[in-house]
Amino acid sequence: MLKPSVLKELKAIVGADNLSTSPEELVVYSYDATQRESLPWAVVRPVSPEEVSRILRLANQELFPVVPRGAGTGMSGGSVPVCGGVVLSFERMNSILEIDEENLLAVVEPGVVTGDLQREVEARGLFYPPDPASHKFCTLGGNVAECAGGLRAVKYGVTKDYVLGLEVVLPTGELIRTGARTVKSVAGYDLTKLIVGSEGTLGVVTKIILKLLPLPESVRTLSAFFPSADQAATAASRIMAGRIIPRALEFVDRGALRAVESHLHEDISGGAEAMLLVEVDGPADLTDREIGKIEELVQKTGASRVVRADTEKDRERIWKARRSISPALYALKPKKMNEDIVVPRSRIAEILREIGDIAKRYELMIVNFGHAGDGNIHTNIMHEAGEAAKAEKAVKEIFAAVLRLGGSISGEHGIGLSKAAYLPMELGQAALDAMQSIKRALDPKGILNPGKIFLNAECGVRNAE
Amino acid sequence: MLKPSVLKELKAIVGADNLSTSPEELVVYSYDATQRESLPWAVVRPVSPEEVSRILRLANQELFPVVPRGAGTGMSGGSVPVCGGVVLSFERMNSILEIDEENLLAVVEPGVVTGDLQREVEARGLFYPPDPASHKFCTLGGNVAECAGGLRAVKYGVTKDYVLGLEVVLPTGELIRTGARTVKSVAGYDLTKLIVGSEGTLGVVTKIILKLLPLPESVRTLSAFFPSADQAATAASRIMAGRIIPRALEFVDRGALRAVESHLHEDISGGAEAMLLVEVDGPADLTDREIGKIEELVQKTGASRVVRADTEKDRERIWKARRSISPALYALKPKKMNEDIVVPRSRIAEILREIGDIAKRYELMIVNFGHAGDGNIHTNIMHEAGEAAKAEKAVKEIFAAVLRLGGSISGEHGIGLSKAAYLPMELGQAALDAMQSIKRALDPKGILNPGKIFLNAECGVRNAE
Repeated sequence: MLKPSVLKELKAIVGADNLSTSPEELVVYSYDATQRESLPWAVVRPVSPEEVSRILRLANQELFPVVPRGAGTGMSGGSVPVCGGVVLSFERMNSILEIDEENLLAVVEPGVVTGDLQREVEARGLFYPPDPASHKFCTLGGNVAECAGGLRAVKYGVTKDYVLGLEVVLPTGELIRTGARTVKSVAGYDLTKLIVGSEGTLGVVTKIILKLLPLPESVRTLSAFFPSADQAATAASRIMAGRIIPRALEFVDRGALRAVESHLHEDISGGAEAMLLVEVDGPADLTDREIGKIEELVQKTGASRVVRADTEKDRERIWKARRSISPALYALKPKKMNEDIVVPRSRIAEILREIGDIAKRYELMIVNFGHAGDGNIHTNIMHEAGEAAKAEKAVKEIFAAVLRLGGSISGEHGIGLSKAAYLPMELGQAALDAMQSIKRALDPKGILNPGKIFLNAECGVRNAE
Repeated sequence: MLKPSVLKELKAIVGADNLSTSPEELVVYSYDATQRESLPWAVVRPVSPEEVSRILRLANQELFPVVPRGAGTGMSGGSVPVCGGVVLSFERMNSILEIDEENLLAVVEPGVVTGDLQREVEARGLFYPPDPASHKFCTLGGNVAECAGGLRAVKYGVTKDYVLGLEVVLPTGELIRTGARTVKSVAGYDLTKLIVGSEGTLGVVTKIILKLLPLPESVRTLSAFFPSADQAATAASRIMAGRIIPRALEFVDRGALRAVESHLHEDISGGAEAMLLVEVDGPADLTDREIGKIEELVQKTGASRVVRADTEKDRERIWKARRSISPALYALKPKKMNEDIVVPRSRIAEILREIGDIAKRYELMIVNFGHAGDGNIHTNIMHEAGEAAKAEKAVKEIFAAVLRLGGSISGEHGIGLSKAAYLPMELGQAALDAMQSIKRALDPKGILNPGKIFLNAECGVRNAE
């Protein structure tokens, strides 16, 4: 708990209106999309890097945890204040500061909603490709903290690939600038990319310089339905091996199809066992040619039906179905563990078979969908309240299979709380030690977002040494 | 100097044939493209990560510096053993281990020459875009250490954008694997991107997983000559603002044109004051359209002559001229300081004017050429033997102007020895401190490549604590 003198100082920094301590307000900042919950001791809403810096200096002096928070849409518990402390909420730092059309970049504050930036730049014929499913709610600060991925990573990469530079308050309160307003810059270590994806444990981002691209001239979309998951996975591999890089290449399995069809009261697939959703972008003559080639290719691989989404309305309809999968799954079972494994794309058919075997062995319903183009599959272990231990065992087996195939236990959700126990499986002790030594170097008192990523992180803060 | 017992242990690790201590051998490993020189105490040529690990453990025990080295083509002194010690040369670890066509990736050892990998993957219809001018000699390990850029960064990014994962021996000898064989992976801090560009100070790379792309179907090249540098810079900005991203967009100023024309005994430019060299790639109908638009645009911006390079022979001829600039400059003056500043591309005309003013004020010949598309300009301060102090003052003024315009003092060469004195101008003390705390965390005894990046780094190694 915070001493009254500390609360007084926090109030002096952000103003009384921007400090919350009442239980009904605190509860709003206690959870994320994992449904994990932990009440903070206070919430502050800073408006400038200087305020953030003063709060962190105070935290180092008085030894309380500080937890940065965007919109709370994270999928691994990154913003859940599991050790209590003070939540730094960025709802007041939500301005698009600049859209530089000549240099194809934008400068934003961390509280800007991703979809708002996308809309603004698209109106100017520009494009910010990273596209997490929560883009209508999530913030760019949160995207940076977790290195959010999304649907378009297969062609365009992830958040990290668009962050040119940052303004960051280090855990000890110093304000630094990293990177530059240029694509090239090699002045010292790449602190930009170290901060991106560090889940709010190495620094608090207060400004972001993002690279933009010209908006593609046209988009073509197609859905293909298959009599087996294996054929769909094979078709996905063949599209990529055919040297076409679609901007989205999504896989949806039987369980997810049935769930979303029942959720939307609509027969989308005609009883198919799996669906691919493919989208290409670029100049119109090129996309017409590519989507034609893809159509031919999926048909040769055994697609029972192929549907082109020719109008914007058709596109919206099919993407709505894709976006509805996650909520629709709750109709199947009351609980789900939502993993986001990633394997080299040629191993997708293999990992799906292994997951099928694991599901059978543990008598669990496991539903798979996601980004076949980049190998990032959302594996949902559906279970009843009493089956958590069994589900966790299955998860561990799935992760072991993923690592055997040269993949990673998290493609885009981050480690946070929910995957910390499994991280040593992927990294090994020496790499974990290296990461933790960096954490200690930048945050000697363990102030910033404690309890995340590393299982052995102490809850609470260290005493001054 | 090394004790005889240490030499004996090194010999036991790599074998007598792979340890050099004779002065005539050591001199070969003493310099890079900066012409800075410093003799190592010994050179070893390891053949496995295990050997590298044993050497580093020995170094930590016996306290001698270890300096990793590729082909010695670096432009900032990164591989010069300025504190002596043992050079780790990767000439025996030079295998392309795998080209995975399905997953569009390659796995290589650090000693592979960049151009060799490019040739191998292109023969399979694949593409490794990073293209440093030294690609025929430089190694991928060196490219990773310095985060090499090159001609195609405007469209395709730099080395960092292609490194999916690494095998690294940490300064203390532990072997770790970072990243994955996938584009997405967020398992803990991004050690991959921290190691890339760390100039051999944070780890020794022993294996590299590189992302590949499909080889573009066609390439179109054009050179345009202008009556003023200002018009050429403006045309470069307009091409990018016209939402065309060429794969190369090179600028060459008057001094560089005259030097290369006299070097090749050929009138390339018809007396022009500046040249742009533009190359687009992609499907043939698209590149034809784009190169047509670019031709129109440069003519509107005042180009006095535009030449299409329609055949492979024409392309070779014009690129040969571009590649000859650097050696040709030595005919102008006996000494050059070769800087590689980068500014937001819309500021190129401005920085060229500022550099012109600085050249006049200091009565120095300054020649500019380079990557206008990404704002990365090679600024060569030509001078006589006695003018080094004056040239250094001019460099400092150029860097100050670059930073005022939102750029960086090094786009692709790295800091190494030659820019360490200027790094604080760009970063400020807090960011420098953060970087050095990371260095100390991973290399507590300061074994690995001491004396680089940070001006106050001690030459030699710390005593055990």
